[in-house]
Amino acid sequence: MTRSGAPDLPGALATELRGTAHALADAARAATLGHFRTPIDAETKEAGRFDPVTVADRLCEDAMRAVLARRRPDDAILGEERGTRAGTSGLTWVLDPIDGTRSYLAGTPTWGVLIAVSDADGPLYGLIDQPYIGERFEGGLGHAGMTGPLGARPLRCRGPRALPDCILMTTFPEVGTPEEGAAFHRLSRGVRMTRYGTDCYAYALVALGQIDLVVEAGLQPYDVAAPIAVIEAAGGIVTDWEGRPAPGGGRILAAANAAVHAAAVAVLNAR
Amino acid sequence: MTRSGAPDLPGALATELRGTAHALADAARAATLGHFRTPIDAETKEAGRFDPVTVADRLCEDAMRAVLARRRPDDAILGEERGTRAGTSGLTWVLDPIDGTRSYLAGTPTWGVLIAVSDADGPLYGLIDQPYIGERFEGGLGHAGMTGPLGARPLRCRGPRALPDCILMTTFPEVGTPEEGAAFHRLSRGVRMTRYGTDCYAYALVALGQIDLVVEAGLQPYDVAAPIAVIEAAGGIVTDWEGRPAPGGGRILAAANAAVHAAAVAVLNAR
Repeated sequence: MTRSGAPDLPGALATELRGTAHALADAARAATLGHFRTPIDAETKEAGRFDPVTVADRLCEDAMRAVLARRRPDDAILGEERGTRAGTSGLTWVLDPIDGTRSYLAGTPTWGVLIAVSDADGPLYGLIDQPYIGERFEGGLGHAGMTGPLGARPLRCRGPRALPDCILMTTFPEVGTPEEGAAFHRLSRGVRMTRYGTDCYAYALVALGQIDLVVEAGLQPYDVAAPIAVIEAAGGIVTDWEGRPAPGGGRILAAANAAVHAAAVAVLNAR
Repeated sequence: MTRSGAPDLPGALATELRGTAHALADAARAATLGHFRTPIDAETKEAGRFDPVTVADRLCEDAMRAVLARRRPDDAILGEERGTRAGTSGLTWVLDPIDGTRSYLAGTPTWGVLIAVSDADGPLYGLIDQPYIGERFEGGLGHAGMTGPLGARPLRCRGPRALPDCILMTTFPEVGTPEEGAAFHRLSRGVRMTRYGTDCYAYALVALGQIDLVVEAGLQPYDVAAPIAVIEAAGGIVTDWEGRPAPGGGRILAAANAAVHAAAVAVLNAR
């Protein structure tokens, strides 16, 4: 949901929060690139399913927490690997040190570091960083832009088009439970093309105006906070599959605009 | 199949061929990056199926052909978009201007430019270029290395491991016909993880020592020539699903080493 009611933060605070987010991404970059494409091992967080975590995930989150301890000691933290730290400011940093650990382990450059700052109503600002490529996408607090190998450009989702002309992305072809997978593939059959395996990079592509839809299931708050902020700042919409706000994760639908969003909600919920 | 019988080209010719390959990649880079992430349209090459080609594919191949007309006028050319040019030298340049046009259209940075030079027995040298990231992988004529955002490093496939510890990649989850898909998913169920959507980038990851297997179907000669040369130069193996040489494409199995290759052939052909 668009934060049309988002508070107008004092300019100095907004500048400090953005500066902190970039400092976090810089710290994360050193930790992730230090182990990318080296022979590290992974352990799995869940018995019976390969849900990997590596030394790089933990070092990266620790590096970001050290920056926050110095710069923003009164803010709360919710991180994927190290849990929750309480705060007193009303602001929470939501951190996913490596979104796409499978991709990271495989050497593919579409994993990312997710950094967001939220208040009680949801994300105010988000940053998606791909350190190997050298791409950084940010949105919120009055900004919507990216920097990368070809320079800087604004982020702006693309305009409405019919579903048969849309590009859809998700990470795993099975997309959650069998029922969730069936709903996804109903949508997939109606679009121009579907691409897999992209993790958080897919949300950056929505904000860039490259693709129209991302549909995923089983997400966590730290998977969605930064994508919500970046896509909403670029004019898009991120909700659950029923069209409700989804700062907690779960079944996520990101759309470039309201028309494509409504069409996708209808197909995902068709009986 | 490893070109253990590959001819020992004169050093000056090998240097000239490598230099030409890099000049082709440089020319291709300008053409592909000029349209990457711009609002270009695609037409489909096949009725009833979205097999896209863009102005960037054609400009890129034309730019490479112009380099060859100057530097190697007596060599033959086999290109995806502009067909075959006959030659008299016994050498053929095999060009795929954008391998992964769907990925290119979606803005994902895992498409690549494929350049190979072959004699009558198959590829002698190959180059896989990802211009947006700034990564170039090459193998053959005595070289096996890559350059990228973190510098230069040699290419070396990783050592044997049991299938349950292997990483497998392919581009489309359906992988060819229903029968081919069933064989693929039999293999997929036996490995540690499977990743999708990577096009030619998956072959580069085998040569980098990051992953163990790539399995695809329905490939063309220009899809496989450069991957064969790069992976074989890095110590790996590329064949069809039965283990035979596959310079013509079709059903392709790339493996990091002979043990993993044999295990995958057994599973793909199990009844």
